[in-house]
Amino acid sequence: MLKVPDHQVAGHKAIGGKLGPVVDGSGRFYKPLQGDERGSHEVSFYSSFSSNSKIPEHISRFFPKFYGTQLIEASDGSGRQPHLVLQDLNFGRVNPSVMDIKIGSRTWPPEAPEEYVQKCLKKDRKSSSLPLGFRLSGLQIFGSRELGFWKPEKKSWVQSLSSDEVKLLLKKFVSNNASGPLDRKPDCAFASIVYGGSTGILSQLLELKAWFEDQTTYHFYSCSILMMFEKDLISNGKGPRPEIRLIDFAHVVEGKGIIDHNFLGGLCSLIKFISEILTTPEDCATDGLLDDHVQRNHIYYENGST
Amino acid sequence: MLKVPDHQVAGHKAIGGKLGPVVDGSGRFYKPLQGDERGSHEVSFYSSFSSNSKIPEHISRFFPKFYGTQLIEASDGSGRQPHLVLQDLNFGRVNPSVMDIKIGSRTWPPEAPEEYVQKCLKKDRKSSSLPLGFRLSGLQIFGSRELGFWKPEKKSWVQSLSSDEVKLLLKKFVSNNASGPLDRKPDCAFASIVYGGSTGILSQLLELKAWFEDQTTYHFYSCSILMMFEKDLISNGKGPRPEIRLIDFAHVVEGKGIIDHNFLGGLCSLIKFISEILTTPEDCATDGLLDDHVQRNHIYYENGST
Repeated sequence: MLKVPDHQVAGHKAIGGKLGPVVDGSGRFYKPLQGDERGSHEVSFYSSFSSNSKIPEHISRFFPKFYGTQLIEASDGSGRQPHLVLQDLNFGRVNPSVMDIKIGSRTWPPEAPEEYVQKCLKKDRKSSSLPLGFRLSGLQIFGSRELGFWKPEKKSWVQSLSSDEVKLLLKKFVSNNASGPLDRKPDCAFASIVYGGSTGILSQLLELKAWFEDQTTYHFYSCSILMMFEKDLISNGKGPRPEIRLIDFAHVVEGKGIIDHNFLGGLCSLIKFISEILTTPEDCATDGLLDDHVQRNHIYYENGST
Repeated sequence: MLKVPDHQVAGHKAIGGKLGPVVDGSGRFYKPLQGDERGSHEVSFYSSFSSNSKIPEHISRFFPKFYGTQLIEASDGSGRQPHLVLQDLNFGRVNPSVMDIKIGSRTWPPEAPEEYVQKCLKKDRKSSSLPLGFRLSGLQIFGSRELGFWKPEKKSWVQSLSSDEVKLLLKKFVSNNASGPLDRKPDCAFASIVYGGSTGILSQLLELKAWFEDQTTYHFYSCSILMMFEKDLISNGKGPRPEIRLIDFAHVVEGKGIIDHNFLGGLCSLIKFISEILTTPEDCATDGLLDDHVQRNHIYYENGST
C-alpha cells in the first residue's frame, strides 16, 4: 500500500533500497526520522507548531498537517522504523509542477556545532544561497501528457545556478513552452494566473512575509518553500491551484524574541524575483534563444501520469 | 580651523596623533581615504550614488551630502592627504544623542578575499550581528548639561551585547533617566517623540525598508545606520529632530539585479525591536533595577557642551 511519492523533487528518495519518504495513497506522507538529532528536532518542531495557538490560520495553512509519529516498514528494508506522519502535499494533484526553494543565505543556526557550520557555510558559498538569499533544491515542470515533465537531472546544477539562471527557471516554471525546444526562451504564459492575482503565489508569499516581519518564536534554518500548481487544470478551464507550503524543519531553533531576519531576507529576495516577472512581461518572448550555459546543461523528460 | 568631531561614537578617531576624520566647524566632515582599496571604493560609491538619478529624494536625504575629495592636512601629522568631503551630520546640533548601528548579519560581500571573509565572519559570530542581524558600533546618550553624556567605554562590550542588552540600550537611548543611577531601568520617556510619530525614527526606517525591498543596484556590506536626536530641544518646547542617516560605504558592491537581503533582514530586525518599545510601554519602569551583567560593565560620563 505504501509507495514512493510521485512528485518528490528534492531530498532523499526511497528508491533503489534507500531510505526515503513514502506515501499511503490516501493523503498521508511518512518521513523517516533521521537517525541523529535531526529527526527528534523535526518532531519537536511539528509538536510545538501544531499546538501553538498564536499561529493564525492563514499562516498555519502554509504548513503540512501533522499526525504524530508512527512505526512503519522503512523503504531500505531495515524493518519497522519511526516516521513522521504528515499531510501528503501532492495528494489529489494531477501532474503538479513543483519547485523546492531553500530559503536563507545562511542554512546554519548561530549555535550549531563547528563542523556543521563549516559544512553548511561551504555549501552556502558554492550555491546561490549567499548571493540570492535562497537556492533551488529541485523542480519539475509539467509540459503535456505526451512530453511529461521537464526536470533537471543534476542536483548540483540546480543548486549552483546564477542569478540570471534562477530568474530563467522561475519564468520557465510558469511557461507553456517549458517542454518545447530546449533553447527556447520561456513564454511566461501562466505567470499572471500562477504568480499573480489575489490567490496567486506572490500574494501567498506576501502573507508569509508579513508574518515573518513580526514572529519571533521560530528561526527556520535550511527550510524550504514548495511552490506548486497544476497546468492540467488550466486546459480544463479551471484555475491552476497555485499554492506554497513550508517543509523541512530539522534545523528550526527558538527565535528568542528576535525575528528570523535570515529567512525574511531570502523571502524578500524571492518575492522581488517573482514580482519582476509579473511587472516586466516584455522580458518573456516565444522566439528568443537561451544562453549557451543553460543549453549545455543536462535535462531530461519523465512521463506524466495519464 | 579643522578639529576632531565632538560627537563621533564609532570608527577611527583623530586623537593622540592618530589618523581620523576632522570637521571644519561650518558643516563639512573630512574623512581620510583609507590607504588600501577601501578609500577608493568609498569614493566610487559616493560618486555613483550622488549622480544616480534613480534615487528618490526621500531616500537620498538619508545619505550624507558628498562634496568630492580634497587634499588636506591629515590628523596624524603625515602631511596633506586625500580626504572625502562630506556633510557633517552633527553640524548645528546641540548635545545630540547618537547611536551607530552596523546593519546585516554578514559584513562581507560574497566575492571578498578569503582572508577578509574569515576576519569578518569571526567578528560577526562573536558579536550580535549573527543572532540579531545588526550590532551596535557605538553610542552616546545626552543626560543633562550637568551630567553630560552616557557613553559605554569599551567598543568590544558594545559590539557583543546580547539581544536583551541591545533592547535595553535602545530603550535607554530614548530615556530621561539614562544618566541617573546606573542600576535604574530606562523610563522610555522620549520613545513616542523620538521613535514614534509620522516623522520619528521608526517611520524613517520604514521608508528605508520599502526602498530596500525594491532596489537592486547596491549591496551595503558593513554599513551603519546613525540614529540621532536632541534632548535639549525637548526641554525648549521643540521637537527633538529625530533623524537617521546611512554612513560607511567602503564595502558597498553592485547589486546585480538582486535586492540586498542581508541589509534588509537586519533592518527589519531593528525595526521589530523599535516597534516593540513603542507597543509595550509597560515594559519600561522608573523603579526597576537592571540585571547584574549590565551593571558590571564599564561606563563613564563626558561633559556635554554648554
